[in-house]
Amino acid sequence: MDLAVSLDTFWILLTASLVFFMNLGFAAVEAGFARSKNCVNILSKNFIVFAVSSLGFILLGWGIMFGGDNPIIGTQGLWILGNVNEAIYTMQTPTEGVPFWAKFFFELVFCGTAATIVSGAVAERVKYVSFIVFSFVLTLVIYPIIGHWIWGGGWLARLGFLDFAGSTVVHSVGGWSALAGVLILGPRFGKYDDKSGKIKPIAGHNLSLAMIGLFVLWLGWFGFNPGSTLTLANPGDVAHVFMTTNTAAIAGILTSTIVSWIYIGKPDLGMTINGCLAGLVAITAPCPYVSVASSLIIGALAGVIVVFAVVFFDKVRIDDPVGATSVHLVNGVFGTLCVGLFAESGVTSLSVRNGLFFGGADLLGAQLLGIAAVAAAAFGSALLVWFIIKKTIGARVSLGEEISGLDVGEHGNAAYPEFVSRKPTYMASAK
Amino acid sequence: MDLAVSLDTFWILLTASLVFFMNLGFAAVEAGFARSKNCVNILSKNFIVFAVSSLGFILLGWGIMFGGDNPIIGTQGLWILGNVNEAIYTMQTPTEGVPFWAKFFFELVFCGTAATIVSGAVAERVKYVSFIVFSFVLTLVIYPIIGHWIWGGGWLARLGFLDFAGSTVVHSVGGWSALAGVLILGPRFGKYDDKSGKIKPIAGHNLSLAMIGLFVLWLGWFGFNPGSTLTLANPGDVAHVFMTTNTAAIAGILTSTIVSWIYIGKPDLGMTINGCLAGLVAITAPCPYVSVASSLIIGALAGVIVVFAVVFFDKVRIDDPVGATSVHLVNGVFGTLCVGLFAESGVTSLSVRNGLFFGGADLLGAQLLGIAAVAAAAFGSALLVWFIIKKTIGARVSLGEEISGLDVGEHGNAAYPEFVSRKPTYMASAK
Amino acid sequence: MDLAVSLDTFWILLTASLVFFMNLGFAAVEAGFARSKNCVNILSKNFIVFAVSSLGFILLGWGIMFGGDNPIIGTQGLWILGNVNEAIYTMQTPTEGVPFWAKFFFELVFCGTAATIVSGAVAERVKYVSFIVFSFVLTLVIYPIIGHWIWGGGWLARLGFLDFAGSTVVHSVGGWSALAGVLILGPRFGKYDDKSGKIKPIAGHNLSLAMIGLFVLWLGWFGFNPGSTLTLANPGDVAHVFMTTNTAAIAGILTSTIVSWIYIGKPDLGMTINGCLAGLVAITAPCPYVSVASSLIIGALAGVIVVFAVVFFDKVRIDDPVGATSVHLVNGVFGTLCVGLFAESGVTSLSVRNGLFFGGADLLGAQLLGIAAVAAAAFGSALLVWFIIKKTIGARVSLGEEISGLDVGEHGNAAYPEFVSRKPTYMASAK
Repeated sequence: MDLAVSLDTFWILLTASLVFFMNLGFAAVEAGFARSKNCVNILSKNFIVFAVSSLGFILLGWGIMFGGDNPIIGTQGLWILGNVNEAIYTMQTPTEGVPFWAKFFFELVFCGTAATIVSGAVAERVKYVSFIVFSFVLTLVIYPIIGHWIWGGGWLARLGFLDFAGSTVVHSVGGWSALAGVLILGPRFGKYDDKSGKIKPIAGHNLSLAMIGLFVLWLGWFGFNPGSTLTLANPGDVAHVFMTTNTAAIAGILTSTIVSWIYIGKPDLGMTINGCLAGLVAITAPCPYVSVASSLIIGALAGVIVVFAVVFFDKVRIDDPVGATSVHLVNGVFGTLCVGLFAESGVTSLSVRNGLFFGGADLLGAQLLGIAAVAAAAFGSALLVWFIIKKTIGARVSLGEEISGLDVGEHGNAAYPEFVSRKPTYMASAK
Repeated sequence: MDLAVSLDTFWILLTASLVFFMNLGFAAVEAGFARSKNCVNILSKNFIVFAVSSLGFILLGWGIMFGGDNPIIGTQGLWILGNVNEAIYTMQTPTEGVPFWAKFFFELVFCGTAATIVSGAVAERVKYVSFIVFSFVLTLVIYPIIGHWIWGGGWLARLGFLDFAGSTVVHSVGGWSALAGVLILGPRFGKYDDKSGKIKPIAGHNLSLAMIGLFVLWLGWFGFNPGSTLTLANPGDVAHVFMTTNTAAIAGILTSTIVSWIYIGKPDLGMTINGCLAGLVAITAPCPYVSVASSLIIGALAGVIVVFAVVFFDKVRIDDPVGATSVHLVNGVFGTLCVGLFAESGVTSLSVRNGLFFGGADLLGAQLLGIAAVAAAAFGSALLVWFIIKKTIGARVSLGEEISGLDVGEHGNAAYPEFVSRKPTYMASAK
Repeated sequence: MDLAVSLDTFWILLTASLVFFMNLGFAAVEAGFARSKNCVNILSKNFIVFAVSSLGFILLGWGIMFGGDNPIIGTQGLWILGNVNEAIYTMQTPTEGVPFWAKFFFELVFCGTAATIVSGAVAERVKYVSFIVFSFVLTLVIYPIIGHWIWGGGWLARLGFLDFAGSTVVHSVGGWSALAGVLILGPRFGKYDDKSGKIKPIAGHNLSLAMIGLFVLWLGWFGFNPGSTLTLANPGDVAHVFMTTNTAAIAGILTSTIVSWIYIGKPDLGMTINGCLAGLVAITAPCPYVSVASSLIIGALAGVIVVFAVVFFDKVRIDDPVGATSVHLVNGVFGTLCVGLFAESGVTSLSVRNGLFFGGADLLGAQLLGIAAVAAAAFGSALLVWFIIKKTIGARVSLGEEISGLDVGEHGNAAYPEFVSRKPTYMASAK
């Protein structure tokens, strides 16, 4: 038994399984934050999106992301269901001999995460089929191309851009796609009153479900970030990433609670959940490069940022039912920036997916350039795809279906058919 | 430190823990698919069944399954709570020196899975005590004998029958036991209207709960199938099994969604959940023997099969509230057959529990024989046990209790005592 | 790659992650056992408590617990956010070279568990801010000092007191803190009728949620107990601990079910859940020292004890909404005692956190002394802290807020805003 290979394969598959489990986390948080009439629809989206992602990543995504050394796009070894020549792929692990399918599965669950981020933001009005089509394009082409630039050894990696576990590759790309979808779809019916200018808060239907989701996501992050070492060869790095990840999360909890206590008047549980997630997203890029003390600061800032981001998006009438853009986009960008702001010197030995590490004086410049490039590419292409969807199969369900709920309209199901509901929130403004 | 032994012990215990966690998955899926008045009862059954299984497998089950080389039944080392002579047991791991209790715990959680499959099918009318008695007999005797034939080095193993992780040993045995229970119990009150001939759909009370259960089961399957390698010595096998398992699951999601969209008119979430499970059950036997491309086909077929199986069982008035027979029995059989249909040549090096691998030209014949033999043994003995239960302590609760719900009748509890329910589904036909 | 270090680091971080996940388990069990009007509050407490614990354990807790060889309290290396001198800490792993942050994170999640135990007992009337303050003091000072005595190489460890994974250090300390809180707070409004002397049962609002929590906790215990070996060097120990842990849990399920069936008349699910937890708590101290057969007896006794403990506390009007004192305090004490009663000879080679093992003839004496000392220290200090809180910021919400629910009063949230509730339980006595 080649123990090093066995151990690293175990490590990669186990952490990938934890990241896979985040599919439940996203489903539960997003469903809990939405209304019960749309619950089945959200669960369905967060369920099928991993199937669609898997198919997209098998058919083309992996090859585009890792297939050879073209700086813009992978062009080699696109078809992986036959015999694969592993040597051509830029995704390699520090320990030679880790099986291809272990590497593939690890990258697949990250791709799936980017796609599932979108579903919360477009919830409660997007057509099921349209979401499926968007997710397929995202995981087949958009995510892999941008991923190639950073994790596939492409041009951003060569410029020294650093994103250890995906504040940009996963969370910002998912966040930009979500924002594009929200802009194309427009706000939910009744959310903003045009006459009075009032913003109507729409409460989630099940905070127990959201809490389950949060803890599953947090657990998953102990796969997401430490697993991105891709090896147990340097256990100090792995343990360090565990600590910075956890510390940023708890700092985000504490500051988002305090800020919402002061600013909103009460420690709102939804804000605390988003504060925790914000800390986790923000530490995802810098987790191995910064000290534990820095991770406390990064998480604390993220917890503040997310509260004001949620308020801001509402004020400019960008209707994101679960705060996905505030969590994943805003803090994905912030976390990527934190690499430049907080990285310690002397961390250049860290293994990253593409084997490159430049760091140094112009790290902050590289981070800023990467943020801008990904913004343009992800937001631009997502906007285009959502626009085409809108003009062809349609992006949004009918007003009647939106008011009566997507569960019956899209799926013929009710999430809780036996329980009596109050007159739902939307009715007040619908009459 | 003998690192190979330590690593394999870790692997076996970790994957066993994931399989253990499937107890939550079954509890949540089945409770979610049932009505709220029977929710506590289902949760209780899926909770205590693992306790009963553990006791049965400790007292006798393990010994019958692995105790010596009699081709029909284990006869040696039946009592394991004193000093055990590990050498006599046919369950061995590829790496010598893995501790006895690690092997035992791994096999225990598989036994527990077979037992918990039954609970969903007999839900909403079975007496709590009767279910407990049946589960005890199943895990004490029935499961271990059949398991001995296949994983204990018994006659089916010697004929070359292959079931890597339990499409037959676990899922079909559980499924046949469930079918026998359903036939002895009869349908739920109000399910089939004798006059009109109409079939009454009875919706589950909580699809959020069912969704939680599905993801927990899927995660558990990453223990179930890859863990059945029993070693990390061949990381390529482990990674391959991860991929075939995941690929069959996502294919089952996609085809069950499409088929229900076309056939029922909407992408029903319950069907998608069962489609995913069907793909997972079907790939359980062949996961290491088939290519990733084949796993896509196997899962896709499973997703189609399960939709029509659910419809078929309903049509012939076999009332299985959660579709357990369609998922575990039908696709357990189908998956076992797929070993014969899709196995690649040259996979004979794979480690299996009993160290045997024949394969070759008459593999399909062996699979068919095994399916038939297990059908006769499992279904026959389960029918007998359910029949004896019916004639002695009774299998079914009173009609009054069934109508008012098993939660109060059997447990004195209500799952959600504070929430107001609609006039329940059964009332329409009860008046 | 130093494979032994890599493997043990993986083991420690993975089992720590499972223990971390128990935060969800506690949140779900406790929320499920409480009323829906207090659900958000309980979830929030069980969420923020881990953030508070992490901060407390980083700022001072770790240093007090492991900082040097003073027998009463750690005094060295209190500040860990700068450069740490690992050699001074008494918490060492059998394999040299395991990174500091891995050890820290492992101990942190145990500290967090002690703190989260409290929240259930004080539920439905404690002020949010007061709970936060108590948790901070508990994890900053109280838990670390007592932990130092036992796991930090302090005076109890030197006397031969044995607590492998924390029946005393975690569960009893949490339990004593909970009992102190309950006594300072007093019972919930309407729980005990002063005129009639009647005890009013207050049912939990969501047993599905409680069941989810139970299984997550059980899974977490497969990290809690086996992980406390701190190494995979002796896989036989690890596997043995898995089995004793599981066996005690299933025995607790079976006896608590039987006892409640006989004594209450029905197999109450809440009792079965607490029986399982009681078995797990009781086996936590003795898990590696006792045989599997003994673990069956220990768990069986725990399952009986917990039922009568719940009844007893209610009779003496100690109002613990979730039975936390019956589970964690009573069975924490019982389990600690079981080390003296059931320990096999010849287990002295087992690795424990502080490297000490005396055992032998006066083991039972050491256990009794340790139980008494921890009772005095934990209960006394917790009582003092709760008393100071009561006299300064106040411990309890107003009666009006208690009646209308802490979710709106403390958080401005409702857990399930869309669902219509029955006239809540407390109203019957409130009028």
